[in-house]
Amino acid sequence: MADSDKLEQILARLDSGLEQAMQRLLTFLAIPSISTDPAHKGDVRDAAEWLRDELTSLGFDADIHDTPGHPMVVARSQPGDARPLLFYGHYDVQPVDPLDLWDKPPFQPEIQDTPQGKVIRGRGAADDKGQLMTFVEAFRAWKEVHGALPSDLILLFEGEEESGSPSLRPFLQDHAEDLRASLAMICDTGMYADGRPAITTQLRGLVGEEVVIHGADRDLHSGSFGGLAANPIMILSRALAALKDDNGRVTLEGFYDGVEELPDALRKDWEALNFDAADFLGRVGLKTPIGEKGRTPLEMVWNQPTAEINGIAGGYAGDGFKTVLPAQARAKVSFRLTGKQDPERIRQAFRAHVESFVPQDCRAEFHPHGGSRASVMDTSDQAFGAAKEALTSEWGRDAAYIGAGGSIPIAGDFKEILGMDSMLIGFGRDDDRIHSPNEKYNVESFAKGARSWARILTALR
Amino acid sequence: MADSDKLEQILARLDSGLEQAMQRLLTFLAIPSISTDPAHKGDVRDAAEWLRDELTSLGFDADIHDTPGHPMVVARSQPGDARPLLFYGHYDVQPVDPLDLWDKPPFQPEIQDTPQGKVIRGRGAADDKGQLMTFVEAFRAWKEVHGALPSDLILLFEGEEESGSPSLRPFLQDHAEDLRASLAMICDTGMYADGRPAITTQLRGLVGEEVVIHGADRDLHSGSFGGLAANPIMILSRALAALKDDNGRVTLEGFYDGVEELPDALRKDWEALNFDAADFLGRVGLKTPIGEKGRTPLEMVWNQPTAEINGIAGGYAGDGFKTVLPAQARAKVSFRLTGKQDPERIRQAFRAHVESFVPQDCRAEFHPHGGSRASVMDTSDQAFGAAKEALTSEWGRDAAYIGAGGSIPIAGDFKEILGMDSMLIGFGRDDDRIHSPNEKYNVESFAKGARSWARILTALR
Repeated sequence: MADSDKLEQILARLDSGLEQAMQRLLTFLAIPSISTDPAHKGDVRDAAEWLRDELTSLGFDADIHDTPGHPMVVARSQPGDARPLLFYGHYDVQPVDPLDLWDKPPFQPEIQDTPQGKVIRGRGAADDKGQLMTFVEAFRAWKEVHGALPSDLILLFEGEEESGSPSLRPFLQDHAEDLRASLAMICDTGMYADGRPAITTQLRGLVGEEVVIHGADRDLHSGSFGGLAANPIMILSRALAALKDDNGRVTLEGFYDGVEELPDALRKDWEALNFDAADFLGRVGLKTPIGEKGRTPLEMVWNQPTAEINGIAGGYAGDGFKTVLPAQARAKVSFRLTGKQDPERIRQAFRAHVESFVPQDCRAEFHPHGGSRASVMDTSDQAFGAAKEALTSEWGRDAAYIGAGGSIPIAGDFKEILGMDSMLIGFGRDDDRIHSPNEKYNVESFAKGARSWARILTALR
Repeated sequence: MADSDKLEQILARLDSGLEQAMQRLLTFLAIPSISTDPAHKGDVRDAAEWLRDELTSLGFDADIHDTPGHPMVVARSQPGDARPLLFYGHYDVQPVDPLDLWDKPPFQPEIQDTPQGKVIRGRGAADDKGQLMTFVEAFRAWKEVHGALPSDLILLFEGEEESGSPSLRPFLQDHAEDLRASLAMICDTGMYADGRPAITTQLRGLVGEEVVIHGADRDLHSGSFGGLAANPIMILSRALAALKDDNGRVTLEGFYDGVEELPDALRKDWEALNFDAADFLGRVGLKTPIGEKGRTPLEMVWNQPTAEINGIAGGYAGDGFKTVLPAQARAKVSFRLTGKQDPERIRQAFRAHVESFVPQDCRAEFHPHGGSRASVMDTSDQAFGAAKEALTSEWGRDAAYIGAGGSIPIAGDFKEILGMDSMLIGFGRDDDRIHSPNEKYNVESFAKGARSWARILTALR
């Protein structure tokens, strides 16, 4: 039987088994595995065990690995001679507050008819239990048709993603030999805005810095000292204002070293997305892109680095007025990185920039808040082309390579610790209300998501 | 008997009566007239009544005037043909927290020997009961020698100065005819830093403004929007940084209209003060004056206007880090004014300045926080020269005309509502710990303060 016949059978199995697959997902969603809440520690474990049992029943060699936090579920299929692939998802969920904004109890999930079609409603439906189960249902159907699981699969399901993944990096380090694959498949993202299937192939990195400017050793009265004594808020404002020039370009020395122009093919892909910046910004009450002049809006958020001030505080900012000349002022600043920008060099350039604004008898104090390089996946790996084609076939629309303006730490961790790129494919929608009351996942996302993985597996196995 | 003989007698009476005068002050200080604390409302009234009774016993026509807050004590001496003079002080005091930092209970005042000489210790000793009583003791001695009070005196003692004087302006407006004099004598300030007697002849004005920059209609994720969406903290920083140029000059259009160069005589007076900016700043951990280049440090705080940022807040400034791109950022800014600068024009110039930094789809919101012109007293009034000479005689050191960087609202209110200048003479010291635990007033300040007023009265009556 040709692969294409097998694929058709797998897809048919997925379609005919959809009702049962949804029932399995509802059972999984009913477990309140809120990782950040110690009261739910047992529930998180229950979810891990449910998953382990499910994978074992499919023929995986599945185990629960304890960590200082919540357990990891690791499973593998039989070894073969295929390139090893790792599949990642997380089985923990966000808290449910405010509970009174939920139309139905968050852990009594159900299928609902809505004007936008059928949805699976409940905490974790889209983030990430529903997405994780698109893998599992694809493996199940594969096995039913092929009689065996695809070979050389490693599954890694985490239970701490919604609480900062404190155990993940140590776990990857400790189990690097067992977990190393040629590529990681991560199902924890969304479709492109308009519902077009997409593979996220580049993510911006991040450097966080906190700066405190110290002036006098106490708050001063602005009557007695104003005009004579240094004002830390003014020093800070001057340093921050000078971070960008009038064209929106970051002024730090060497900042653009390693930033790469968008390859032509990708530029065409992005142009085809017809990104409507006015609409995107309009939804949050803005309309005008403020990035570097001459860049398209998608370049600004996906392929250009930036400097942002995330927080600032100094002096008296409460009700009324105090004519204080404060002893200090502070700001939190972050840089989104692209290409090969070096987080540490940028951190140092920022510090030097600030220091150049600090008069002799004042002082700047710095606190680092993390640093990670941008992730740019090697799309010349044939898996990317194959996945793109598979998604295009399944959804009947051209799948796109897209970028992400934010960081997805797991992709950076996989690269750094296990040396592998990630293929980020997810089926979430903008209106899924993840992290909010009434979270949902479209049945279409769930069904066609599993079918998408069946197609991708077929292309890669 | 010649005036100078009478003066000598008055001074002798003050010296011989010092012990009794201090006992009266101690009685006054024992009344816990904390105006800001409703629990002490009765005590504030007791202090007003004590003062009224004291003045009545001296022959003043003294009354208590109720206000919506604490009472005013108003007294007047017999009418005559002299220019009417108003004397102002306040009989309320600051709260005493933290109580455990007091060496003795704050309302059990006592005379103490210290390495710096004898002091009167207790809440209100320097601010302002001790200073106010230098008037009263001078009047008492005058009466004992002359057989009558000086004519044409109006006394106004307030009970709300430490809680913002909410009733003062309405009271001045309602009683303008009764209170109008040719000059106000205010005893609520200090000597020049090194203990030199001084008359404060100019005070800076103040304009307060709060600005809020609004960007998106919600906080945004800096990954998804960073580099594309406007950042209100950056807009605010740019506007604030541009308030001053590299020479420390304020850049607002028309800002320096009305600012006047220091008259030569005053410049010489100020030079003679040998103000040590490095020492002044050194006491608060700084050393370098940051004002406009080419100005002396005293000009910077007394005769030059300035712009200061008193508070700033936006985004996330707590522990840790949030990559938020905030919906808004706010700052409180104040301008100290000199000469004839117009508060309202400066407020409008600031608003126009900020608006010029706000992109089309963002918005600046402004809240005014008061505005007052600078007070520049007319020292050609012979009373100033006479008082300066009297102070010089009493203290054996050249008395100086000095400025103040801050505002003293009562002086502005007297000017605006009653049309009279103020002569600000006080005998406080930098180490008096006003508003703090263990407040004190030097016995020398008290004794020579009363003697100073006797000399000034003699010169003016």
